[in-house]
Parts: sequence; C-alpha cells; structure tokens
Amino acid sequence: MSTLYDQYKTTLQKHADIEHSIAILQWDKEVNAPTKGSDMRARQLATLSGMAHELMTDNAFGDLLQQLDEKSDQLAFAQAKNIKGSLKEYQREKKYSTDFVMRRSRVVSNTYDAWLKAREANDYKLYKEALKQMVELKIEETEVLGYDGHPYNALIEEFEPGAKVADIDKLFTDVRQRLVAFAAQLKEATQVDNAFLKRHFPKSKQWDFGIHLLKNMGYDFEAGRQDISAHPFTTSFGSRDVRVTTRIDEQDFGNMTWSCIHEGGHALYEQGLPATEYGLPSGKYISLGIHESQSRLWENNVGRSLPYWRAHYKDLQKVFPESLGDISINDFYKGINRVEPSLIRTEADEIHYHLHVLIRYEIEKAMLEGKAPLDSLDEYWNAKYKEYLGVDVPDDRRGILQDIHWAHGSIGYFPTYSLGSFYAAQFFQQAKKDIPSLLTHIEAGNNAPLLEWLGEKVFQHGRNYSAQELCERITGEALNFDYFMDYIEEKYRNIYEL
Amino acid sequence: MSTLYDQYKTTLQKHADIEHSIAILQWDKEVNAPTKGSDMRARQLATLSGMAHELMTDNAFGDLLQQLDEKSDQLAFAQAKNIKGSLKEYQREKKYSTDFVMRRSRVVSNTYDAWLKAREANDYKLYKEALKQMVELKIEETEVLGYDGHPYNALIEEFEPGAKVADIDKLFTDVRQRLVAFAAQLKEATQVDNAFLKRHFPKSKQWDFGIHLLKNMGYDFEAGRQDISAHPFTTSFGSRDVRVTTRIDEQDFGNMTWSCIHEGGHALYEQGLPATEYGLPSGKYISLGIHESQSRLWENNVGRSLPYWRAHYKDLQKVFPESLGDISINDFYKGINRVEPSLIRTEADEIHYHLHVLIRYEIEKAMLEGKAPLDSLDEYWNAKYKEYLGVDVPDDRRGILQDIHWAHGSIGYFPTYSLGSFYAAQFFQQAKKDIPSLLTHIEAGNNAPLLEWLGEKVFQHGRNYSAQELCERITGEALNFDYFMDYIEEKYRNIYEL
Repeated sequence: MSTLYDQYKTTLQKHADIEHSIAILQWDKEVNAPTKGSDMRARQLATLSGMAHELMTDNAFGDLLQQLDEKSDQLAFAQAKNIKGSLKEYQREKKYSTDFVMRRSRVVSNTYDAWLKAREANDYKLYKEALKQMVELKIEETEVLGYDGHPYNALIEEFEPGAKVADIDKLFTDVRQRLVAFAAQLKEATQVDNAFLKRHFPKSKQWDFGIHLLKNMGYDFEAGRQDISAHPFTTSFGSRDVRVTTRIDEQDFGNMTWSCIHEGGHALYEQGLPATEYGLPSGKYISLGIHESQSRLWENNVGRSLPYWRAHYKDLQKVFPESLGDISINDFYKGINRVEPSLIRTEADEIHYHLHVLIRYEIEKAMLEGKAPLDSLDEYWNAKYKEYLGVDVPDDRRGILQDIHWAHGSIGYFPTYSLGSFYAAQFFQQAKKDIPSLLTHIEAGNNAPLLEWLGEKVFQHGRNYSAQELCERITGEALNFDYFMDYIEEKYRNIYEL
Repeated sequence: MSTLYDQYKTTLQKHADIEHSIAILQWDKEVNAPTKGSDMRARQLATLSGMAHELMTDNAFGDLLQQLDEKSDQLAFAQAKNIKGSLKEYQREKKYSTDFVMRRSRVVSNTYDAWLKAREANDYKLYKEALKQMVELKIEETEVLGYDGHPYNALIEEFEPGAKVADIDKLFTDVRQRLVAFAAQLKEATQVDNAFLKRHFPKSKQWDFGIHLLKNMGYDFEAGRQDISAHPFTTSFGSRDVRVTTRIDEQDFGNMTWSCIHEGGHALYEQGLPATEYGLPSGKYISLGIHESQSRLWENNVGRSLPYWRAHYKDLQKVFPESLGDISINDFYKGINRVEPSLIRTEADEIHYHLHVLIRYEIEKAMLEGKAPLDSLDEYWNAKYKEYLGVDVPDDRRGILQDIHWAHGSIGYFPTYSLGSFYAAQFFQQAKKDIPSLLTHIEAGNNAPLLEWLGEKVFQHGRNYSAQELCERITGEALNFDYFMDYIEEKYRNIYEL
C-alpha cells in the first residue's frame, strides 16, 4: 500500500510542480511581462496547461487512484481523504480533452490581454469580442462537465465544491432582504465623514506602510514578496513562496491599505498550509469561500475594527502627519467604515459589497443561459448598478472593466466572495469565544494569537475537511447568515449611532 | 513532407515552451524569489527539465527526425538545416537519462543556493561541498557524453559547437604571448587616471542612465525589461520577451554602465532573432561565442570608444555634474580604458580580461581531470591570480565566489568569452568597411546602422550557419586573432601614447 501511495504522491507532486510553474508564468505576466511577449507567453501557458492535464488524466493514474480508494481503510485518515479528493478531481478533469484545456488556456491569455487594453482605453468595445469567445467557451465547458439544474452548478463546483445555485440564491435573498433593509436604516442616519481618506498620501510611504502592516499580521517576507499589479491578487508557488500584489492611489489611502490586509489574509492561509503536504489535497486550501473567509476576516473583522487601529493609528499618523494629523482615531474609525453605495467592488463598504457580488452573479447566470446581452454588456451592467445601488456608472473602467475575473475565465467565482464574508463573521465570533483576550491582543498590535488560532483551526488541515465540515468543526454549526448580520448590525448601529 | 515537417515543428515548439518556462522560473529565482522558496523551486525546475528532456528524446521524435533528414533534399535550405541541428541535439540529449537530467537540475539549484549563501558570507567553505557535488556530476556528464581527447571537449560542445580544447589552447597561447607582451609595454608607459569613476554616483541616476543607454542602443523595452540581480545576465523567453539584469555600485560608475551595454548587446541579438522561427534552430543564437561577440562588440568596440562617448558624454556630465563636471571627454575616455591587472573579471580591462578567462579555463580542465584541489580551491585560485595577474586576492567574494557559472553547472563556458571578444574585433572591423560612415553615425548617437548591419549579417540567420561558417560569410575568413590584436594595439598605443 505504501508503495502505491508513494506512486500517487510522486505523480501528484509532479502535477503540482507544473501547476505552480503555470502560476509563476501568470504572476510574471501580470507583474512584469512586456506587452509584446504576450503571444509567446500564451503558448507557453497553453503547453504547460496541456501537460498538467495529460498527467492528471492519465489512465494509469486513474487506475492507481481506484485501487487506493478501494483499500482506503488501510490508509491513514488524511491519506484516504487525499485519495478521495484526487479521485474526484481526476474524474472531473477526465471530462476535458487536452485540446479543450489548451484552447481554454489560450482564450484566457487573449481575453486577459483584451481586458488590459480595454481597461487602458476605458472602452468595453475592445473587450467585447474576447469576452464573447470566453462566454462561448464557458458554456461549452458546462456541457463538457454536465450539471443538474442550472449550468452555473457545473462551474461553481470548481471554486466552491458542494455549493449549488439554490443555496447561493437563498443567501442572496438574505442579502436582498435583511441587509438591504438595514442599509436603508443607515441611509436615514447622519452620514459619517471620510473625506480625509482622499487627501494626498505619497506612494512610497503608502508602500512602506503596507509592508509594515503585512509584517505585523505575520506575513513572512522570506517566503513571499509584494509587487504592484493592475488588480491585487495572491498567488502561491508552494507554501514557501506565496506572493501578494497591491495597487496604490495617492489620492485614496483606502485602496492600498485594505487590499494589502485582504491579500495578506489570503497569503497567511497559503503560507500556513503544511509544506510537508506539498501538492497533495492535504496541503491545499479547501475552497475559495474558505480562502475568502481568511482575507475578509483580516480585512474587515480585524482591519476595519477599532482595536486594530488602536494598535496602528499613532504610527499611521506619524507617517502621514499632513493628511491625518487632525483626524481623531474615532473619526478615522468611522470614516473607514462609511457606508455608501459606490462603483468599485473592491472599494465597497462591507454592506453594499454583497450587492456588487449579486450583480455579477446575476450577469454570470445570464451568460451561461446564453441570455446576457454581450454586445452591450456595459449598458446592462450600468443599468443594474442604477437599479441595485442607485449609482450612475461614468465609464467602463469604473464599470464592467473593473474586475479581472471573467478575463481569467473565472465565471462562477464571485459568490465565493460573499460566502467568505459570511464564514469570516462566524469564525471570528468563535475566535473571540475561544480566546477571551483576543481583542486585547489585537489592540496591543499582537496578532499572533489569532494567527495561531487560524493555523490550528483552518490551515493545518489542508483539504482534509470540506468547507461545510470545517465550519461545523470550528463553530459547531453550519454556515449561518445570522452571524454576519449580527456583526454588521452591532458594528454599524454603533458607528451610525442608531 | 510538409506534414512531417509540421509535426517536427509542433514538437520542437512545445519543447521551446518548456525551456522558456524554465528560463522564466530561473529568472524569477535570481531576480525575485524569496529565500525559503528555493527547495520548492528546485523541484519545479527539475520536473520541467525532466519533461523537456523526455519530449526531446522521445523515440518517435527521433524517427521523425531521421525520416526528414533522409529526405532533406525536398526541404528548403533553412528547414534542412533545422533538421540537421535538431537531429544532432536529439542524439546528444539521448545520451542523458531523465534521471540524470532531473538530478542535474536539482544539483544546479542546490549549488546556486550554496553559492549565494557563501557569497553573502564571503566564505568559500560554504560553497565547497556543493561545488564538489557539481564537479562530480560534470565528470559523470563527460562520461555520459563521451569525448575524443580531453573530457573538456564533451562539455564545450554544448556552448560552442565545433570548438575543441586544442583550438582553445592555441588561442590562449596567443593571449599569453602576444597579449601579455603588449600589456608589459603598457606597464612601462605613464598610467592613465580613472579615480573619478570611483566618486559617488547615486543609484537611481545610474539606473536611469543605464535605461537611457539601452534605449539608445535599440533595445526594445516593450519586448523586455531590466532588473537588478547579483550577477548581471540576459535571458530570453522568446524573442518578444528578452530580459536583462544589472547591478549598481554607487562608488563605481563602471560596474553598472558597461554591464548594461554588455547585456544590451546580448539582448539585441535575442530580440533580433526571427520571431516566426520560434523554437526552431533557425530562431536561435548560434553559439555562446557568437552571442558574446555581440555583447563584446557593444561593450568594448562601441561602448568604450571615443565616438560613442562623443555622443553621450555631455548627457552623462549633466546627470552627474559633481562627479564628472571637471573631467574632459578625453580624460574620461582614457580613464574608462585604463589597463591594469585587477580582481574581478567583469570589471577587467579588455586586455587582462583574457587572463581571467585563462585562469578559469585551466581550473576547469583540472576539475574535469579530477585534479583540482576542491578543498582549497580558493587558495588555488588566489595563487593563479598572483602568478598571472600579480594581484593578491583579499577575500573569496573578490576571488573564487565572483562568478555564478560553476554554480549553474556551466563548466566549459568561460572560453566562449574570449572567443566572443576575438569575433567582435573581426566583425566590427568588417562593419566599418561595409559602412564607411559607421563611426560618424555612432558619434551622432545613431546606432541604427550598426544594429541593422548586425541584423542582416547575424540575427536573421538564426542557427542556419555555424559560428565558423558565419565568420567566413561575414568577413571572408576564419576567426583570426590578428584582428583583435590590431584593434588592441591601435587603441591602446593611442591612449598610452606609445
């Protein structure tokens, strides 16, 4: 058995080597690569994707998995889980032809390039044709994979195993009813001021402060680095090389700061995964919803809390005395939590954020149903923003071109952002129960107890539990929207003095 | 035939995709990667190397090459050349087992890491064991490959096809006799001053000036970029993404400047290779000697010439008025060409440079003969520097740890540096004949005519001609040391007023 298991491990780790190489090529493409190289890079990515696919769908590997799965009672717990997980992945991957995978890789590269150009020109028209190709490909993909009910179920499985359109719809019913009702209450209250966030914050000082925050969270710069990219992201080349990117706007302090903390949260999860389990499910994150629970927990539950800024606000004022010297910590805290409908998802407040997600989710469903008006999707997008958020979208860059996801082929991804916030609220509530002094530590600038708790509860298990199982294990119950709603109500009643 | 040729092309381009991916991972390792990630990166590189090797040594691919070669009269000239070249590569590669290739990749990663650590600690001892492993591996490699005469012949073939120890020995006889004799004459003359090069040159201004020089040479920043690394190098991920690195010493203007021009020369060659021939021999550089002829031609024949600085010196003075304001262009020109035995190869003058190479060449031959005293190779190195250059090596960083090559597994590489200088002199002499106004253009800051000439004579042909054939085609004769000697004598008699 142990020889068979070793064979399995060797193959899977080789597969991980290729997948991580792909991640390096992609990271480089987004952070460094010169424009003219994109065609060549596209074919290099396609070749590696094809090879990864061939390795994963090799019949002999399938037989090996089957054999191991049949004798899984002779395996240790994590080993048996690994085999189950890999078998599922094998079966899913087996549905794709190598041709499809390589074609998909090329379409992704092209769509990304088109998105980049369109974004620069601030013009959806330059993106349209590429996006059409992408949507066509994704519809084809739902057919390749097969599905029950809505074609969306075929795609979300990749990002959030076990999630179904029916569940997501239900969550967004809560968003639409309870969250929107609460937002309406806030609208009646006196608005808090955050104009100071739009004062001048020099680039290099922001950069240094972001690095400082990342270090303080526990991000290990000897096992990662930060760079600038158009859209902030985290990527892993194995848990010893986990990189984050950010962007800096000198006229908007918030842009860099909370993207830094957010990506830092993702990166802590990746750096915390057991290095000994390299390439195996037991060394991987569970789902994007759980991944997002980590970034959201740090970004919002910690990074937009009063205790957190009690630890950092004095330092921050020292870095930007002209812009923040006259702002009290209470006014700062209120300002960074100002609730207001706006245009950009990544800059949205914690409440309206989920309406941004809802819009994308609805468009994605329409795309897969073949009903999205792709020729004028910018207008369609803008109409939804008017309807749900009451805002006028002035241009494509602040509208449909703001997100990279569809350009990457990630359709079915957005709902995991909302799931992440809801998990985060539930987990953080539990962390406060488990560590009664948690907020005191955070207030003292000591995030180690929280990081340790996350390591014990989440990171060390890799993919040994599903998202649903993990939530039960940590909090004793299934995902429950009440935790998020309670967190929001308590926090914002206080800020808005309701 | 055309179907068979297309099959060949597809395989070879897939191979190029993997090789370029490896280059990206390596570039990233040297420019960006965090220290803790090196083990994981090592295994990723090993996996990709193994896959590239398997693809290249596939029996079906060998049969295909054989078939095509037998019918090469039905192929176009460049196609037939490609098949010949690939068949040769196939036969060489076939001698290696996949196990050996992956092992070699891991040894390279380890040795590189050890070199980096040893360099930082300025201590050969930290490198010693890794280097021993490497030398052992390279000896094994000479046996795997087989050779006539000296085992060195097995390895140099990779870098300089067709070159033999006997030829190299002969060239170094010229170096030892004619070049050393001339250096002795210069020693009697009044030394020129270059102390101004060691004044203060702020980092960011040096960086900007280097970028300016690269652009002026014709380096395309939309198809490349420059970064900082411990040892400057050029790498290609396909001719549309060719990157250079440099290093900057604020107390030494020369360090950055001529490494920039040098790497720029390499990069122009790579950017000039025909993109349509991606992955094929007809899209690749000929040999390292020819590659080096390009970097040396720009670095020395152009970049250390009076006409070149007539174009740039005023700009340079404007950038560094405190350090160069009081230095006339003639004194600058003389200073940057000061001849003097020194410690660091990459900073050596054009004459003593070849003694640095000779030392490495002798050590490499001893390594492969199993006669190099690896336990105290630092002392062995230092003794040779004393003997050949008359200098005392004060520490390992300025001694045996200065070069990356052995850490990369590149044993048999160094002689190509000298070959490059000799080719460069012969080519540049021809360029001046072919373009009578060449120096006038360079003096006006216009390098386009030279770049065009190189494109026509060298770049466009890829690997269609061997180094020897190319030299004949361009200059009407074989490599001839006289050109280099004449260039050196004329230039330095003038500078040293002999």
